[in-house]
Amino acid sequence: MQKLEVQLGERSYPIFIGESLLDRPECLLPYIRGRQVLLVSNETVAPLYAERVRKVLADGGLTVAEAILPDGEAYKDWQHLNLIFDALLAARFSRKATLVALGGGVVGDMTGFAAACYQRGVDFIQIPTTLLAQVDSSVGGKTGINHPLGKNMIGAFMQPRVVLADTTVLRSLPDREYSAGLAEVIKYGLIRDLPFLEWLERHMDGLMARDPALLAEAILRSCRNKAEVVAADELEQNDLRALLNLGHTFGHAIETAMGYGSWLHGEAVATGMLMAADLSWRENWISHQDVARIRTILVRSGLPVVPPPVSPDEFLRHMAVDKKNIDGRLRLVLLRQLGRAVVTDEADRGRLVATLMAGEHLGQA
Amino acid sequence: MQKLEVQLGERSYPIFIGESLLDRPECLLPYIRGRQVLLVSNETVAPLYAERVRKVLADGGLTVAEAILPDGEAYKDWQHLNLIFDALLAARFSRKATLVALGGGVVGDMTGFAAACYQRGVDFIQIPTTLLAQVDSSVGGKTGINHPLGKNMIGAFMQPRVVLADTTVLRSLPDREYSAGLAEVIKYGLIRDLPFLEWLERHMDGLMARDPALLAEAILRSCRNKAEVVAADELEQNDLRALLNLGHTFGHAIETAMGYGSWLHGEAVATGMLMAADLSWRENWISHQDVARIRTILVRSGLPVVPPPVSPDEFLRHMAVDKKNIDGRLRLVLLRQLGRAVVTDEADRGRLVATLMAGEHLGQA
Repeated sequence: MQKLEVQLGERSYPIFIGESLLDRPECLLPYIRGRQVLLVSNETVAPLYAERVRKVLADGGLTVAEAILPDGEAYKDWQHLNLIFDALLAARFSRKATLVALGGGVVGDMTGFAAACYQRGVDFIQIPTTLLAQVDSSVGGKTGINHPLGKNMIGAFMQPRVVLADTTVLRSLPDREYSAGLAEVIKYGLIRDLPFLEWLERHMDGLMARDPALLAEAILRSCRNKAEVVAADELEQNDLRALLNLGHTFGHAIETAMGYGSWLHGEAVATGMLMAADLSWRENWISHQDVARIRTILVRSGLPVVPPPVSPDEFLRHMAVDKKNIDGRLRLVLLRQLGRAVVTDEADRGRLVATLMAGEHLGQA
Repeated sequence: MQKLEVQLGERSYPIFIGESLLDRPECLLPYIRGRQVLLVSNETVAPLYAERVRKVLADGGLTVAEAILPDGEAYKDWQHLNLIFDALLAARFSRKATLVALGGGVVGDMTGFAAACYQRGVDFIQIPTTLLAQVDSSVGGKTGINHPLGKNMIGAFMQPRVVLADTTVLRSLPDREYSAGLAEVIKYGLIRDLPFLEWLERHMDGLMARDPALLAEAILRSCRNKAEVVAADELEQNDLRALLNLGHTFGHAIETAMGYGSWLHGEAVATGMLMAADLSWRENWISHQDVARIRTILVRSGLPVVPPPVSPDEFLRHMAVDKKNIDGRLRLVLLRQLGRAVVTDEADRGRLVATLMAGEHLGQA
């Protein structure tokens, strides 16, 4: 078992990474302050793992209630967030209660936001069960729900008390979701950690075989990268944290244009990262060879690299509502060089449109 | 114009108190960081004052959008909070937007919570238009909405950038609402400021006539008392801040039993404070004369002092869901002496039931 401490002053917390952490009381019980725990999960994950977590909590003498949500981004809305509040109030849980999120990013985002709001804030713990959630949502404290007019528009910054990244549970993950998680892993290499990118290029075959030791290493290095960025910019008040959004502005536009759920978030981000790389090449910042290298590792990870047939106008419209745009200017994360991302609002409009029109050419070396 | 600085480190902010502040750009514009402002008000207040605020903002070169909510505690729910998000997203406002709350406590609570959640946090400004909101909601950062199973159960701690307490707007306040505000003013005297209580006893006739100078003084001293308590316990992590809830546990039970909106919050708190005083007398902490003195000033303020006919069982049931109860123990704010409140979970059950059964006797000397 590995341990990474996320340094955020009095909101610091540990991430434990390893096999079968679900069954280890010493990873969970010391981080629960009251006696009341609400276990939040979804209809897919709960039948697989909820009983094991519930047993650890109950054996620890805690009162455990449950809220089981339907599975999917489509349910990341107020109506379903309210199911969590209903369960807390039905159980008459006080502000000393702890919420435990057992599931992917949607469960984590919703549970964290519910914890931020219930009686103006109670503790919460994350047990992410997807690779994406383990390398992304477990660090950063971003929680929230969607609004019909925009993704993640309503939420809070809320840090967990502890995160358990159990590599064993990833075995049950569908291939597509596993690959979507790898997109975010690769992202850390691209934006700030060239040695990690090279490590991933060496070990991608083993990672695709879900080798536990390689997985633990990949998760640790991903979380460490994100933790360093977040520690320097917890509330996203400067450009540092925005670098984590490489590929996300293009990706959000793909997700919005295609309707949430048709592309997985990680898939949209993967193609979005290649689009950002393509524009970075057009800006003369990275080489054609760099772009090819990024395309290759994405393809080896089972990720899509050709955007859907969306017109440049529609792309631009969906990109403009992104949270990164301050007072109307379009801000993008691009690659100044391989392993170093920058935020810019000065990308040339003509080159941007060229990238948006590249379509199938993006998939070709 | 008077100015009170609420000391909360980097979240410190000023409260301006005085006449016709609504028209003074120097109280508003320096506290707005971006160029986008959403003015949130309700259907009662907006026709009276929104145009004046809108003019100050527009003359300052800002883009102003509006969200007008229906008036009343009954609408302090998610559906109506969502109207604020709808307006923000329809206007495509960024995370540099500022929300301005123009109205009573409901508008302030909802606007502050919307600001806490929109894109995980944007600025907000309070222009409270009721006496209750000026002396209570303008300090403390408590924001939120109701849930069918409990009041203020969903919310956030969120400090405003500035508060404008315009004494002129109080002239249009209905008598009942004005008196309800006085209940919270009197509370500060009872819990921690005996000289202020004596000042109120001397000046209650002038205050009932809404004398502007006396009003400004009463608001300033109320806000200063609350600011001192909040500065020492911003996130309600010790018992200090709980003292502000004198009368509130009894009061919430009255409001819940009678249905929100039948008793005004301040009216329920007034009767609740007399019930707390009665129990404090039964505990042998304050004298019968002290209780009479509290009853007298409440009656002079036009406030009810007799609880509705609710059985002790029902009272206890509604009191038990109060946020102040940790892990199931009933905690109450009582008066150790006149001008000094304490939090206790050791009130004698028999004496508590005696207070709950006192009914009309509470109204008699």
